[in-house]
This record gives sequence, C-alpha cells and structure tokens, in this order.
Amino acid sequence: MTKFDEATGAIRVDETTYDVCLDPGYSIGGPLNGGYLMAVLLRAVVDASPHEHPVTTSAQFLRAAVPGPAQVRLEQIKTGRTATMTRASLVRDGDSIIESLVTTATLGGAAPDWTDGPSVAMPPMEQCLRLPAPKTESNMTLNAQMDLAFDPPTIGWLDGRPSGRPEARAYFRMAEPQDPDPYVLALAVDCLPPVVFSAGERGWAPTVDLTWHLRALPAPGWLTLIGGGRLISDGWFDEDVEVWDSTGRLVAQSRQLARVGRG
Amino acid sequence: MTKFDEATGAIRVDETTYDVCLDPGYSIGGPLNGGYLMAVLLRAVVDASPHEHPVTTSAQFLRAAVPGPAQVRLEQIKTGRTATMTRASLVRDGDSIIESLVTTATLGGAAPDWTDGPSVAMPPMEQCLRLPAPKTESNMTLNAQMDLAFDPPTIGWLDGRPSGRPEARAYFRMAEPQDPDPYVLALAVDCLPPVVFSAGERGWAPTVDLTWHLRALPAPGWLTLIGGGRLISDGWFDEDVEVWDSTGRLVAQSRQLARVGRG
Repeated sequence: MTKFDEATGAIRVDETTYDVCLDPGYSIGGPLNGGYLMAVLLRAVVDASPHEHPVTTSAQFLRAAVPGPAQVRLEQIKTGRTATMTRASLVRDGDSIIESLVTTATLGGAAPDWTDGPSVAMPPMEQCLRLPAPKTESNMTLNAQMDLAFDPPTIGWLDGRPSGRPEARAYFRMAEPQDPDPYVLALAVDCLPPVVFSAGERGWAPTVDLTWHLRALPAPGWLTLIGGGRLISDGWFDEDVEVWDSTGRLVAQSRQLARVGRG
Repeated sequence: MTKFDEATGAIRVDETTYDVCLDPGYSIGGPLNGGYLMAVLLRAVVDASPHEHPVTTSAQFLRAAVPGPAQVRLEQIKTGRTATMTRASLVRDGDSIIESLVTTATLGGAAPDWTDGPSVAMPPMEQCLRLPAPKTESNMTLNAQMDLAFDPPTIGWLDGRPSGRPEARAYFRMAEPQDPDPYVLALAVDCLPPVVFSAGERGWAPTVDLTWHLRALPAPGWLTLIGGGRLISDGWFDEDVEVWDSTGRLVAQSRQLARVGRG
C-alpha cells in the first residue's frame, strides 16, 4: 500500500457512512487540496458501489478543509447494470466540505471508437521545468507528493513573466512509486497552479464546482496534464484539464469554475 | 410571459418544494429534453435563492421524464454573500428524474478581464441549414420551439455524409419572440443533436451528467452554439457546448458525459 493509498483510505462504518482521516501531506498552504479530498470521497463511493470506476464526479466545494478525522456520507440514488448514481458528502466536524454526485460504472479496455489528440503539444520532458521547493513555512506539503515538470511558458509567472493567457501544462507522476489509477487522477485534475496565474492573477483561487470524467484506466508511467481556460470575468474563471496517459490516451477530463483570488 | 416562461414556471409550495408541470412541447420523441428539464429545475432554485443567477449547475440524469405534474425539491446547503449552494431534485410520480447541485450568485455586466474566441468559426447565417420538419409521429415537439441554423458539415449525417468527428454547430434562437436568459441557456446547452451523430453513431444518447456554467447574461438576439467532443470510447462520449451571444461574448459553457445510443 502506497502513502497515497493510505492517505485516501476510507473505512466502512455502515452502508451510508465511512470514516476517513484527512492527511496533512496534501496541504496547499493550510487548506487541503480539492483533488485529494475528491480522491478520499471517491474511495468510499466506489467501495459502496457494485461498479468499480468513478466515471463522472461533480463536486461543489463549500468550505476549506484542514487535516484530521472526517466522514463520507453516502446515499445511493439509483443502481443498475450499467451505472450506479450516488450522492456523497465529505463532512468534517459536522460541516459539509464537499457535496457531490458520482456515477460509477465499469470501464473496459477497448480501443477508442474515435479520439482527438491533446489540444496543445508538450515539449520533451528534458525541456520542462520543476517548481522551486516551497518555503517550509508556506505549508505547501502537497508539492512533495508529486513530481511535476512544467511546460516553461506556463510558469513564466513565477519570474514575473506570465504568458498572458490562462494555462498550465505539466508532466505528472506521484513522487513515490505509484501507478496512476482513478484516485491519482482525481488528484491530478486539481493539482496544477490555477490557470489564471499565467494570466497575471494571484492569490488563493477557491474552486466552486469541479466536474471530472474518468474516460479510461491510465497505463503505468507519466501523465500529461493540459490545463487552460476560456474566460476570466466578474471574479470567476473556468479551468479545463485534460489528462493523457503514457500511451497517449485521454484518461480524464475536468472543468472547474472557481473564483479569482484577491492578491 | 412567453410560452417558454410558462412551460418552465415553478410554483412555490414551501421553502423546500415547488410544483411544476412538465410541458409536452419539449419532447424529443417521447422523453422530454434534458435542457428543458434543467430550466424548470433552475426556476425553482433561483426563486428560493437570495442570488439571481445560476452560475453553475451539475445535473445527473437518472431516468427519462414524460409530460405532466412534477415537483422540484430543494435543500439550501450553504448561503453567503457571494454564492448560495443548493441541492435540487426533479421528482415525477415519486421518482427522481434529475439530481443536481446548483450554485447561484449575482453576475455583473463588466467587460471580461480575459477572453478567448470561439473554438471554431461559424459560416455566415445565410449559408447555414435548417433541419427538415420532423414527422408528426416522431413526437419531436422540441424542434418547433427553436429556430436552429446549422453549420452544414455538422449535419451531413442527415444525408448519410457524417463529417467523421463529433461536432454540431448552429445559430439558435427561440421560435417565439423571447430574449435569451439563463433558462433559455439551460435549454440551449442541450438542444443540439448529439455530437456523436456526425461521427456516424445513431440512436438516443442518454445524458448521464451535464454540468454547465453561466458566464454572463446574454444580450438579445441570436446565440451561437459550438458543440464538440474529444473521445468516444467504451459506450461513453463527452459533448462540450460553448454558447456565444450576439455581441460575441461567451455566455455559457457545458460538458456532458453521455452513453452512445444503440442503433
């Protein structure tokens, strides 16, 4: 069992309740990363489902979560041969952190009937850049869990040279030896710096809604994350992330609507 | 009050229940159109909210709905100065048709801080094509409510010449005089023929999850709908729809995960 498997473990209490322990290793400066929280929630949903794969997850984020004991509360709304729909909440100290709707199903491994390629090409990995190690006092513990190699223009904002458009692209794998699986993908779709940083915005950008679809089971190896956005307006922005596996297959698609941070 | 306003009306019973009447004018061959059903549900959510605009809606579709009396059941999960989050179900004869999570907020009319253009350019309207009138016995009553002018290659499938990729693009307005508003947009994001038709698939393609974001209030006039998809695999496909208003502003973005129809 990897550290990530352990940090996302969910222990069945009864058919509607799972105990979880939110791990301090996935902090983004205090609050825990939303993708990590989704992974925890999905462990419980899938354990309770007759189907193996969380094909679609719609999560609304109500408040930030800090590490410690929490619960996942489930209600299966409909179950059938093809799919099971579940309403799931992540609850910490009596407060709902995430409200979600999840459809589980069982994906096969057949070749796609039709597929597009990545919307933007990545440079070779040797031309990509790592983020500098975060200052200890920043409490960005998440960064140590992941190995991210960025397409250079998309982190120009670090040196005061934002590209001027919302984007973030990187090769991704877990820092420890861990093959990607649907729970790693839940983390991956929400682990890039907010795409608005490269459009010149700064500050914590809280997610309001994140919906992601698991399209295929990822092959072992690096993932490629292609993040972009279409509109920054009225304090809101969208962030799309495509996840491609090491065989060049589209394995996950996400879109979130989030608030632009304040400085 | 327009026919559409009437067909989507929701009457408050108490703070958690609204009565609605599902209108036979929005049928897609028997079942009612999912976008229409979302519009009905959103009328109730917004009426019960201190905020005016449904900025993000995640809807999972459990079963098909036929016309007749139904209810919207609401639970406000969190309300604040910026946004209110509501869980809402559309219930018909005791069965849940749609389970949703909706965030309402109040959008201003300021110019975007950053915006992309449409992902695909449309030809001028005079080069676009109307769908042939449906046969009466097909019970496609939805078509009569809308005026859609299609980018020709995207409905080549009608004459046995599918373009070979998932796409559907059209100019859209309501058939009756009706300025677009958030409820019209809820219909618009789910009113195109399934994008997989132009990739050569056929048959009813049931939506499992549809998430859409209202990005700005639409100006009067025609809307432009740009629909596409990235992957058809394992019986599942994604459909993205961008909605642009007559001033060239991105007003809505949707993505749905749906099942490929069977013949």
